[in-house]
Amino acid sequence: MFSREMYALGAQPSVIREIFEYGRQRKAAIGKDNVFDFSLGNPSVPAPPVVNETIKRLCDTMEPTVLHGYTSAVGDQGVRQAIADYLNRTHGTAFSAAEFYMTAGAAASLSITFKALSEPGDKLVLLAPFFPEYNVFARAAGMEPVVVKCREDDLQIDFDALDAAFDRNVKAIVVNSPNNPSGVVLSEETVTRLCAFLQEKQAQFGHPVFLISDEPYRELVYGGVRVPFLTKYYDNTIVCYSFSKSLSLPGDRIGYILVPRSADPTGELYKAVCGAGRALGYVCAPSLFQFLVPACLGKTSDISIYQRNRDLLVQAFTEDGFSVAKPDGAFYLFLRSPETDAAAFCERAKQYELLLVPSDSFGFPGYVRICYCVAPEMIERALPAFRKLAQSYGLC
Amino acid sequence: MFSREMYALGAQPSVIREIFEYGRQRKAAIGKDNVFDFSLGNPSVPAPPVVNETIKRLCDTMEPTVLHGYTSAVGDQGVRQAIADYLNRTHGTAFSAAEFYMTAGAAASLSITFKALSEPGDKLVLLAPFFPEYNVFARAAGMEPVVVKCREDDLQIDFDALDAAFDRNVKAIVVNSPNNPSGVVLSEETVTRLCAFLQEKQAQFGHPVFLISDEPYRELVYGGVRVPFLTKYYDNTIVCYSFSKSLSLPGDRIGYILVPRSADPTGELYKAVCGAGRALGYVCAPSLFQFLVPACLGKTSDISIYQRNRDLLVQAFTEDGFSVAKPDGAFYLFLRSPETDAAAFCERAKQYELLLVPSDSFGFPGYVRICYCVAPEMIERALPAFRKLAQSYGLC
Repeated sequence: MFSREMYALGAQPSVIREIFEYGRQRKAAIGKDNVFDFSLGNPSVPAPPVVNETIKRLCDTMEPTVLHGYTSAVGDQGVRQAIADYLNRTHGTAFSAAEFYMTAGAAASLSITFKALSEPGDKLVLLAPFFPEYNVFARAAGMEPVVVKCREDDLQIDFDALDAAFDRNVKAIVVNSPNNPSGVVLSEETVTRLCAFLQEKQAQFGHPVFLISDEPYRELVYGGVRVPFLTKYYDNTIVCYSFSKSLSLPGDRIGYILVPRSADPTGELYKAVCGAGRALGYVCAPSLFQFLVPACLGKTSDISIYQRNRDLLVQAFTEDGFSVAKPDGAFYLFLRSPETDAAAFCERAKQYELLLVPSDSFGFPGYVRICYCVAPEMIERALPAFRKLAQSYGLC
Repeated sequence: MFSREMYALGAQPSVIREIFEYGRQRKAAIGKDNVFDFSLGNPSVPAPPVVNETIKRLCDTMEPTVLHGYTSAVGDQGVRQAIADYLNRTHGTAFSAAEFYMTAGAAASLSITFKALSEPGDKLVLLAPFFPEYNVFARAAGMEPVVVKCREDDLQIDFDALDAAFDRNVKAIVVNSPNNPSGVVLSEETVTRLCAFLQEKQAQFGHPVFLISDEPYRELVYGGVRVPFLTKYYDNTIVCYSFSKSLSLPGDRIGYILVPRSADPTGELYKAVCGAGRALGYVCAPSLFQFLVPACLGKTSDISIYQRNRDLLVQAFTEDGFSVAKPDGAFYLFLRSPETDAAAFCERAKQYELLLVPSDSFGFPGYVRICYCVAPEMIERALPAFRKLAQSYGLC
């Protein structure tokens, strides 16, 4: 009657969505201030004022048939040039507008890129822990995901495991730094080694291996940490960007794909990206949000709030006896479960009204993801609950 | 190196896009007032004031983390309820919010619906003339398009041809009324007969055959013509709607899929729609434009301008000796080419700086599409050129 595969995707609620729904019901039952929901990566800090100010200014000053009209499928030329100029200023690169394709956010960027690259038999390497929808987008594009676990101690790449998993059917590898769900930023050492590894594989196989850099959290870093800009390290890099997290506008669906000339000397891959966007029904990225972008480049919502949240939680967890790293970016903590089964740990946490996400669906069992893009007051209220949870395991 | 199929889609410029590009160059060469571009279905009447007023009000009054935040994947509950209420008031239906899935416009609505329905071996019936991207979306979803030409005299459905093309592999048929590229509205008689035909086929094959109603032009009708609301005629109807054309905001990408309970008693098809949206990377329809919708239901841009344009052109074409129907909706005229090869006719029209689209890519050779969503002044300037074109064929 209809696609069983799509039904399965739609009917199987993601673990995160399930926990979120539980939280909604629980809040209705016992009051919203008594439930501590750390399940969703939804920015809690409002968009910076420049966002609404610019939207209103565009409404007042721009010809409506342009503001609300179609842009070309690849996006408005002036907007793409503004992004190129900004990146060139910031990273010392030399991109032009023609290397950018505007998208409806990170999920669109990834779906389109995977579809543009995919040929029968292709594999896509995912570094665990990873955002679970990568699996969905890869399979929808006809690519087989190959999961390679990162090192347990610092969540940097395990090159022995990567080498063992790599074969000539690997078309691309996805990196996501800062990472969802761990917050970890790949070090320059890791990046350099990864690029050398990929160069070697390209030479060995005699065909390109693409490095897809999924960067929605690029600007969300703390303490002056630098996130290496990957096109400078490796020619066959494709950047998938979204403004969702840095500007706190995930619902507005705006981002881009950067297909640098270095990865695409003939311009044919860019055309494949155009074809994939067309095949997936995208037409053009929302015009008004495209026109918003130039005013917002280099700006972020007030991320100092996330940093304070992180510091508060890491300190408390350490005092409680939990094992947790202090990651440099995004708004996630990756806490080691005190028992092997992270799902069981999350169930016990629920007894203290703490909603955490077990790491199994991120391809890296034994941990929980804690989203700290929440109100600082909720964290303050949650700390005694975390303490009791730790005590129940005899950690403190 | 990458997908040849996606490259082909991205590299092959659509005929319409090619003509549009030619027009751009020609305008640069001889001045924009001297080129008469009737090639693009891009609304020329500005969005009604309520659009920008509502956007600004939302910016001023709504919590930014909600206005710019994720909605649920299916769309905001209140927005979906408002649409249900509006349709129920207007058409005497009894829909609930749970039957609506918000999308990023018509192309997304169709892509998601095709993907949700598609099983291996499925066919999709398209009634020519049709919007060429149907082919692209159908193939991307793995469905084989089957083209059935409408009757030459009135562009209503040719039921003999339809019957001859129908077999048990047909999963669905797409209707688009008012139609792009012809502007024709399917009569109630045609609709009634189509629904009886589909009922019969369902009984014969023992499985559902879905009627997909693509309705971006529903509100663009002139002279009090009624567009039958298809869920009232046939249980297995799925409505794909977009606000692009009626509100002149094609770039903003907002629409919906209506999966009525009558077509989906178990709710499983709706879940397949959710799965398809997820697989194609949509996440949620742009939130701000979702929140805009309730204030705009039942409103349109000033479509009296289109009606005047239509009347002006039809009168002139008739006087010139062209053969053209006076369609009731959308903003397209379908003019019969005075020579068999419509592409040759369009080439000759270019000599008079008239940019028209040959109908071959709409699956119905021998005609040209004329988009009259243009400035009335351009039409006035273009009339002498049309006269000369007619004279060159000895029509007047």
